[in-house]
Amino acid sequence: MHPTRIQLAADDIPTHWYNIVADLKNPPAPPLGPDGNPVGPEKMLAIFPGTVLEQEMSAERWIPIPDEVRQAYALWRPSPLCRAERLEQMLGTPAKIFYKYEGVSPAGSHKPNSAVPQAYLNKLAGTKRLVTETGAGQWGSSLSLAGQIFGLPVRVYMVKVSYNQKPYRRLMMQTWGGEVIASPSMHTETGRKLLAENPDNAGSLAIAISEAVEEAVSVPGTKYALGSVLNHVLLHQTVIGLEAKKQFEKAGEYPDMIFAPCGGGCNFAGVTFPFLGDAAAGDKRAQKIRYVGVEPASCPTLTKGVYAYDFGDSSGFTPLMKMHTLGHDFMPPGIHAGGLRYHGMSPLVSQLYEEKLIEAVAVPQVATFEAGVMFARAEGIIPAPESAHAIRACIDEALRCKESGEPKTLFFNLSGHGHFDMTAYESYFAGKLEDFAYPEQVIQASIARLPKVG
Amino acid sequence: MHPTRIQLAADDIPTHWYNIVADLKNPPAPPLGPDGNPVGPEKMLAIFPGTVLEQEMSAERWIPIPDEVRQAYALWRPSPLCRAERLEQMLGTPAKIFYKYEGVSPAGSHKPNSAVPQAYLNKLAGTKRLVTETGAGQWGSSLSLAGQIFGLPVRVYMVKVSYNQKPYRRLMMQTWGGEVIASPSMHTETGRKLLAENPDNAGSLAIAISEAVEEAVSVPGTKYALGSVLNHVLLHQTVIGLEAKKQFEKAGEYPDMIFAPCGGGCNFAGVTFPFLGDAAAGDKRAQKIRYVGVEPASCPTLTKGVYAYDFGDSSGFTPLMKMHTLGHDFMPPGIHAGGLRYHGMSPLVSQLYEEKLIEAVAVPQVATFEAGVMFARAEGIIPAPESAHAIRACIDEALRCKESGEPKTLFFNLSGHGHFDMTAYESYFAGKLEDFAYPEQVIQASIARLPKVG
Repeated sequence: MHPTRIQLAADDIPTHWYNIVADLKNPPAPPLGPDGNPVGPEKMLAIFPGTVLEQEMSAERWIPIPDEVRQAYALWRPSPLCRAERLEQMLGTPAKIFYKYEGVSPAGSHKPNSAVPQAYLNKLAGTKRLVTETGAGQWGSSLSLAGQIFGLPVRVYMVKVSYNQKPYRRLMMQTWGGEVIASPSMHTETGRKLLAENPDNAGSLAIAISEAVEEAVSVPGTKYALGSVLNHVLLHQTVIGLEAKKQFEKAGEYPDMIFAPCGGGCNFAGVTFPFLGDAAAGDKRAQKIRYVGVEPASCPTLTKGVYAYDFGDSSGFTPLMKMHTLGHDFMPPGIHAGGLRYHGMSPLVSQLYEEKLIEAVAVPQVATFEAGVMFARAEGIIPAPESAHAIRACIDEALRCKESGEPKTLFFNLSGHGHFDMTAYESYFAGKLEDFAYPEQVIQASIARLPKVG
Repeated sequence: MHPTRIQLAADDIPTHWYNIVADLKNPPAPPLGPDGNPVGPEKMLAIFPGTVLEQEMSAERWIPIPDEVRQAYALWRPSPLCRAERLEQMLGTPAKIFYKYEGVSPAGSHKPNSAVPQAYLNKLAGTKRLVTETGAGQWGSSLSLAGQIFGLPVRVYMVKVSYNQKPYRRLMMQTWGGEVIASPSMHTETGRKLLAENPDNAGSLAIAISEAVEEAVSVPGTKYALGSVLNHVLLHQTVIGLEAKKQFEKAGEYPDMIFAPCGGGCNFAGVTFPFLGDAAAGDKRAQKIRYVGVEPASCPTLTKGVYAYDFGDSSGFTPLMKMHTLGHDFMPPGIHAGGLRYHGMSPLVSQLYEEKLIEAVAVPQVATFEAGVMFARAEGIIPAPESAHAIRACIDEALRCKESGEPKTLFFNLSGHGHFDMTAYESYFAGKLEDFAYPEQVIQASIARLPKVG
């Protein structure tokens, strides 16, 4: 029978993560403090344990995955590589379409790939409890699960408007034992101050980050965990691409193009970095691959942002990172792909983009959901709105192949399912979704407010 | 590395379904009409196509699975067999616990195992569109998906109260192209009559069945599809147990006990019938297995019902079937395991129970959710409330093993995930769930109203 899914065995779960820092042409730009000087590890140690910081700053090419982490990965990994033959037929394209399906994780996305090692590394370092923030809930539920696996209590500051509008995600965290707090809350100075000013403050990701970091700094034994952007998070996600390489080998295929949604960058990095590593090592096929980050037209960080030092949060609380950014006070419109509503981009992905090793494309919201529904009807799986961005770009290329007759092999990361995003599909079916993009001058004005550095 | 999941390849998808009718000691009791005479195929042909009826009435032991169906199965099958080692450790039991995970299907449960062949067989027979009913939405979404795969439009009559309370399941059906109608509706005589009497009628599964069957009978080219109870549905589900046998062989293990939720019976049949077939063929190990159907204490069909002819629906519209029943007008309490709220039981499962080849146990609701949460925290997967019934019974046995020191091998069917049932978990966490069981005299009174036959 024609195999639709290429499976690997538990033994095929990678034994090492791939660290692209070892293969960069130029060293990564260091994070800077408000004074313009590099931030030392001692400051970072207040919120992250040494075990995590060591990975964050490592230049080693291969970093061993602890046995305990591999064993926890085995709850859902290796994830399948699938061929979307029904979608190919629906499109009438000569292209072959493959996708890696990360929605098989208990949390339904790729996020546990980093939540699990972060919880483990914290446990190892003696951390007593973890705090984090969550917007749509993907990261908060992944960390709740990971904390449960390694016996670490997890508190999640969840943006209040999501807390109220997304009860299912909140309940998922609670089922895994996570403590979920609507943010802003009375648990922190930040929250108390904001609620005193406005008791109806609906919260934002930036506020939730501030609350979580404040608690990590002030409560002994408590550390903070972040779900994207930073080097160690991207590192952990490389299990996706490492498995995919084995699976393509097993299938006797090789991608011409790789597509992944691009929000903070960990999804894109996870699937592409191992191939980029091969390219850096001289693999001619990997050098020929086109690596395409797909972002929402409403939050076009790579395609319309600048490469500059900026804050990671909107309130200027974090160190300055050199990255593609729309400006830290850029307010992404309320699109349904909550995971892609971020003004900045991981510094590593930004550097690769700047060095022209990767590409980016921006897609509008309505066309994205159209692609998501096409995929669901062809392949069964209802994709998360974030993942649907990669599907849109992949379908567009498959349709170009139909025009040109080129039998390209296209590959995208289906980073998660949409079981908790069905109201977004409802809006799409009801014709209520909008394609929104800020006028150029709004973006330019936001960029003009970037902090002055050096 | 220690394998947690036993995977099979696409080629391992069974080539034949196993039909237990070939191995029954006594022939199955025929369905009867209101006159007490067996219902002939000509009456059934008004609602089912010949291709389906042929399977319904077959006594062949092995029925080939069409290539088209196997190819569609390959979208998610073979499903994994997993060892719940973290749960074993949490319980401190010497028992080994295995589960087959059917939640990997796009619809999130075992239901597509029959929806897919039913849609295919209808397509083959020239059916132009399908109608069905759905309560909680599992079956309706599975048939919507299957219809989409084979190009058959699907209309689903969804119990109105669920239509309003479970928008996510409804949206899932719509995403797959299913047309979802709140029942009672103005589309049928049945619906119009009921709405004329009471415009606020909230609907029931019985009413939705009546509407779907009425439409199948009256609209040319339209056929009806049922998601459990009937022989052909149980037949289709045997892919679960057939795969499990291969997986146990691969793992070098063998179950001492098998647990499955028991509502209409297709879940239980799917996992146990292939082992029971081995037992019938003289396999001593299979003969030693204890086969345990797990039902809710609030709807104890096998444990408290009688074995008698009764209607399949509450309004007396269907043929009479010989089965375990609480009486067709027994009103199951509003527990969260909607899939187990059925007054009757599949005739095949009933016969096996009557012949003492299988056992049954009833578990209360609160303890069931407690088991579901334990499982979620240990293994990551949040189980559907229906599946949590099997988990409860399995955990109880594992705890007995802890007392006795017996290292039994326990196996249960994790028939689906709970992503669309999170509000049930919310009620559990809030302490709002109740253990409800009718007093004995209520059940006896319902049974006393059984139709008189012959």
